[in-house]
Amino acid sequence: MNILFTFEPKPTIQQGLQEQNPQHDFVFQKGQKPTTSTDVWVTYGEDVKESDLDEKHNLKWISVASAGIEKMPLEKLSEKGIVVTNARGIHKTPMAESILGHILALYRNLPAIYQLTVEKEWRRPKGSRELKGSKAVIIGPGAIGEEVARLLSAFGVTVVGCNRSGREVDSAHKTVPFQNLVEELEDADIVLSLLPSTADTKHALTKSHFKAMKANPIFMNFGRGDVADEAVLVEALENGWIRHAVLDVFEIEPLPKESPLWSQDNVTISPHVSSHSDYYVERALEIFSRNLIKWEQGESDLENQVDLKLGY
Amino acid sequence: MNILFTFEPKPTIQQGLQEQNPQHDFVFQKGQKPTTSTDVWVTYGEDVKESDLDEKHNLKWISVASAGIEKMPLEKLSEKGIVVTNARGIHKTPMAESILGHILALYRNLPAIYQLTVEKEWRRPKGSRELKGSKAVIIGPGAIGEEVARLLSAFGVTVVGCNRSGREVDSAHKTVPFQNLVEELEDADIVLSLLPSTADTKHALTKSHFKAMKANPIFMNFGRGDVADEAVLVEALENGWIRHAVLDVFEIEPLPKESPLWSQDNVTISPHVSSHSDYYVERALEIFSRNLIKWEQGESDLENQVDLKLGY
Repeated sequence: MNILFTFEPKPTIQQGLQEQNPQHDFVFQKGQKPTTSTDVWVTYGEDVKESDLDEKHNLKWISVASAGIEKMPLEKLSEKGIVVTNARGIHKTPMAESILGHILALYRNLPAIYQLTVEKEWRRPKGSRELKGSKAVIIGPGAIGEEVARLLSAFGVTVVGCNRSGREVDSAHKTVPFQNLVEELEDADIVLSLLPSTADTKHALTKSHFKAMKANPIFMNFGRGDVADEAVLVEALENGWIRHAVLDVFEIEPLPKESPLWSQDNVTISPHVSSHSDYYVERALEIFSRNLIKWEQGESDLENQVDLKLGY
Repeated sequence: MNILFTFEPKPTIQQGLQEQNPQHDFVFQKGQKPTTSTDVWVTYGEDVKESDLDEKHNLKWISVASAGIEKMPLEKLSEKGIVVTNARGIHKTPMAESILGHILALYRNLPAIYQLTVEKEWRRPKGSRELKGSKAVIIGPGAIGEEVARLLSAFGVTVVGCNRSGREVDSAHKTVPFQNLVEELEDADIVLSLLPSTADTKHALTKSHFKAMKANPIFMNFGRGDVADEAVLVEALENGWIRHAVLDVFEIEPLPKESPLWSQDNVTISPHVSSHSDYYVERALEIFSRNLIKWEQGESDLENQVDLKLGY
């Protein structure tokens, strides 16, 4: 088979793939487009355009080395019968560590401690709190949310999961369907969205959700930026409905210079880096390699196959 | 009995103590000294002077609402047969949360993210690492160290405890005696001292310990500041033997303006705040109240009784 990578892993990784799969032809070329002879396309996803999927292709499978596929032409892919797999799950460890780091840092006053260190000033900042005994609501918990729930539980946090189905989330105290979210938000100390971007999740968190947050929680968005309208977020911050927002994702990325989020005191702008890891590419390609064996053997149960109708 | 508090808890707490113990007389007065009729002294410890312990006293028990007692006249207390209890263990939750927060923040690049937020700049800082799979050495693990070990284990960190006896530490992968510390430091990614200040621990971490740290670890001191000479610490930082130091305690506190630690880039100065908590006084007084019942009943197994010879 002809396998096209439109990103360029380290030379040792390229070599490893070729040595383990001598029966296939690999091309590693950023900016390349699939040709009529390309069988498999391995990509970060953002370079897949509708115009790339025309009739003359042989293309049957696109392996995406990222989790979010909302920028891909899903309808056209579905129409063409092209199988899409992604790398969901590999972000679990670095993202959960980032999320726990942000929570603990805010509870234990680390931003103030860093600032006082820079100012060379010995002063004990007020407002350190204990995480233990608090309540977190995780909206849209998949692999990442379950890992966050497991770790928060170790800290003595009560975790409530919220998903469409109400399907029980591992390590969560309980799981509620989306229509019961508002009542769980009332006494939440931490609200974390991990929702992907789909037609159903766009602006799914409304002003009424934020107004319901009576315990002045930390709001964290580590899913996709369009789950809440930026104007609603700013209103929640300005009215003190939320204590602090930690945002890893935004409606427009990079966040435009003129966004009012930059000028809020109580916002942490994490520039979509929470999944960063030294092991990222290796892990994504482990999934690809396992799927390549299945694909060759004609198996249909590929790992992480995307439901193109649902968008995740 | 006459019970003197030389710190002043919230009025509601004072009232609660008096209501629960109507048979005793309480005085709450900062700066006060025990009189000849004082039976029990409740203090943060720093105001207990050798001259306070003269012949004419009735004083039999000092209940210290803190963990460190190194500033108290231990020999004189021992000589006078005065029982000392402290509040060790109540720092467990807030300190472990602070320690985990500092570790995760450094691994996940949060100081850079905070700085970029302040500068209103969208840039992805390099150097995020994963905590999972790393190795931590905890020197002097008591209740706090065991809690840190438990939490680090949940993150997939291999924890090695190090104490005088080699007594097995809960949640640690293994525990080694102090004479085997150097070899464990060689591949440590995190080195955490929780040692108290005693004659044995003063400057117990020497230049040879820091030079042995080949994996360029984060060094954290949350025990007492005199475990390492400040000059040795600065040398370790300047030579890159350690990647970063997070210091909650110092040989002299407040850390003097002229200390070279202030001018190191890779130091976090946490001004002895890691144990801060809204629940601090309540928890210390819960121990005191339990001990007061035992004391009245003439029981000898008081909770958290200090060994005045060992100093902890």
